[in-house]
This record gives sequence, C-alpha cells and structure tokens, in this order.
Amino acid sequence: MTIQLTGYSISAYCLALLQVLKELGLSYEFIQPNNFEDIKTPEYLATKHPFGKIPSLNDDGFQIYETRAIAHYLVKKYQGTKSSTVLIPSDVQKAALVEQFISVEISYYTQPLGKLVGQLVFAKRRGNEPDLKIVNEAREELEKVLDVYEKLLEGKDYLTGEFSLADLLHIPLTNYAIKAGEKDLWDKRPNVSRWWKNISERESWKNVLNEYTLA
Amino acid sequence: MTIQLTGYSISAYCLALLQVLKELGLSYEFIQPNNFEDIKTPEYLATKHPFGKIPSLNDDGFQIYETRAIAHYLVKKYQGTKSSTVLIPSDVQKAALVEQFISVEISYYTQPLGKLVGQLVFAKRRGNEPDLKIVNEAREELEKVLDVYEKLLEGKDYLTGEFSLADLLHIPLTNYAIKAGEKDLWDKRPNVSRWWKNISERESWKNVLNEYTLA
Repeated sequence: MTIQLTGYSISAYCLALLQVLKELGLSYEFIQPNNFEDIKTPEYLATKHPFGKIPSLNDDGFQIYETRAIAHYLVKKYQGTKSSTVLIPSDVQKAALVEQFISVEISYYTQPLGKLVGQLVFAKRRGNEPDLKIVNEAREELEKVLDVYEKLLEGKDYLTGEFSLADLLHIPLTNYAIKAGEKDLWDKRPNVSRWWKNISERESWKNVLNEYTLA
Repeated sequence: MTIQLTGYSISAYCLALLQVLKELGLSYEFIQPNNFEDIKTPEYLATKHPFGKIPSLNDDGFQIYETRAIAHYLVKKYQGTKSSTVLIPSDVQKAALVEQFISVEISYYTQPLGKLVGQLVFAKRRGNEPDLKIVNEAREELEKVLDVYEKLLEGKDYLTGEFSLADLLHIPLTNYAIKAGEKDLWDKRPNVSRWWKNISERESWKNVLNEYTLA
C-alpha cells in the first residue's frame, strides 16, 4: 500500500510535507477532501485527526497526524532509502541544531508570518479586505525576527550550515508572503536573501509549485 | 564539565527540562539569571539565546536553546545511560506517536492553557487583576480540547499508552492551572483525571516541586 497524505494543496503544512515526500524520493497519493465539512465528520475525527485538522498520513495502515510529527516519522523511516537527501543528520549535535531551528521557526518566524499571510493571502481569498492593523503589526514583528535571522545566517548557506528539515519548513509560508508582495523583507537582508534563494530554488520545491495549486 | 541549564524555576519550560534531567538521571547545574535584563545583553544573545529567551543549555561546550530541542537532545544523547526511563522509544512508529502528542500539546493544549495561566498566575504575580474575558475564552477553548483528550485517553494510562516526553511536557503548566483553582476542568473527565494523577505523581515531578520555587 502506498503512502496516503490527506490535506489541501493550499495549506502551507501540506506543501511542506509534499516537499518532504519528494526530497525523500517517496511515491505517495495526495487525497484532498471535497470541502472543509469533510474533515469534521465523526469518521474523519475517529480515523484521521481527532481535532478535525489536516494533514493526516497513512503509511500501510499506520496513521499519524500533525505536520512535524509526520515529517519526523518519514525521515526516521525512509531517509537514505530512496534518495540521498539528509533532512535530519544522524550526528546527535547536528540533529539537535536542526530541532532547535524547527522550534525557532514555530516559536518566532511563523507567528508573525502566519498573521501576515493570513491577511494578505487567505483573508483576500475569502473576499475580505486585509486588516491593515494586523498586517502592520505582523510586519513589524517579522522585521525584528528577520534581523536575528540575518545574524544567525552570517557566513552560512542554511540555518545549520547544511540544508535540513528546518530550512524546508520555512518555505511554503515565506513563498506565500513573497508572492503577496512582501519580497523586500527578505531581499533587504543579504544573508536572509541568500538563504531564501538557496532554499526556494530546491528542485523538490519547484516540483511542488509545478504540480499543485496554491492559494 | 557538568550540564548547565540557564533559566528560571518559575518558567514552565524550565520546569519541564528539570524534570527531563531528573528522569534521565543526569547531574546538572541550574543557573538563574539575576533579572530579565540579563537575558537581553549582547553577550547573552550571542552565546545563550539569540532571541533573548530562556531556557538555554550547555553540555560540555555544546550550546543549544529551545525547550523541545533541548529535551530531544538530552534524550538522544543520554537516555538509557543513567536511568531506565524511556521518554522516546526507539521503535519508529511508537516514537512518531510521541512526536504527534508533543505537537498536539503545542498546537491545541498549551494555547488556551497558557492564556489561562498567564492571567490567573502571572498577571496576578505582576500585581494585575486577571482579565476575565481572556480567562473565560481560554477556559471555554480548553474545555473543548480536554473533551478530545478524554476520547484520546480512553482505556489508556498515558497519551501513547506508556509514559513519554509527550506526557511530561503537559505537567508544569497544568500544575499551575490546578494550583490556581481550575482542578475541576481535569477532574470532571474520568480519563483525563486518571491521566493527570498518573503523570503528576511521577517521582521526578515531586522532586522538582520539592526543590524549586514556582510562581
């Protein structure tokens, strides 16, 4: 049985997992529920995700939900078997730094960026005008976070030095912000700009962009 | 050189890591900076945590920050060497479910619980009255989350069946809420109540409570 990923291609979480699957060289089936009610049915809650969210993954009967848990599972089970990509190194200290930057992404980067994209992309998609107060506050917060990233990325091509799952998890939401006209936030910081170029030009991400419909 | 943990004993993050260190049977030094300005100095930002936060850990020269990354590092490096506690199992599927519930804790449980404790414990500590609108909204959201936990914990003593890092990470903030008078939220759900009894009565947590000053 093939790997089945349930979710929506407009979701940054799903886009990240699609890229992980491609990086690891895995074949998979991507199942997009017809509408948002489908992920709130008793059956979906009982078998896919008890909180009624996406993504959810089934690997030959083994069911798991939550993006980062799914990514870790796929890496631990399949890394090195179908491609040579290393998303989490086996060295304990190097792996720890990948986990550190995954936590940095959740704790600092995605907080303001998610708010910005929520307004500039997803509010618009629902036919609403962006709330400029939220946009401005999020942008201001993101500026401070990117100032720290600029220091962290000094002399480095990737967050830990080598491309890893930590870099990958930054891509989909950053891509949304840049497409929505916020490119300057990344461009005006040389190290951050170089990093974004490095990670956004990965073959796996280009394949995701070619294959799926984003918001 | 011994393991050095920098942070504050009132922090739920630090309390979780202190418990991890005890579960793994590790000796350590706990360094509490004199005041909150000390974690914003150029030196602290350059050597301990670039975002000016706690906790930060140094293990014989290896520096790492962010609670969950530190916990994973300690488990990967030391689990099984000084105690028999298993916080993350070696089996790939069992480990994946631990990661899943760690993500559930961050994504659903700690969001409303953090707001509740922020008002009932930390706002009071700063001499402010709790904002009852925030308290009520957080409590309402937490009720829904705990309803899902009640189902997830059916027939189980712990989230994955066995005690793990996922259970442990729930303890400090829940302890704060219960001490602040919110015990009924856990008590009125039999499975959640049994789970809380199991995890809060761990020897390692009792030792943390005996040894450190909480908020």
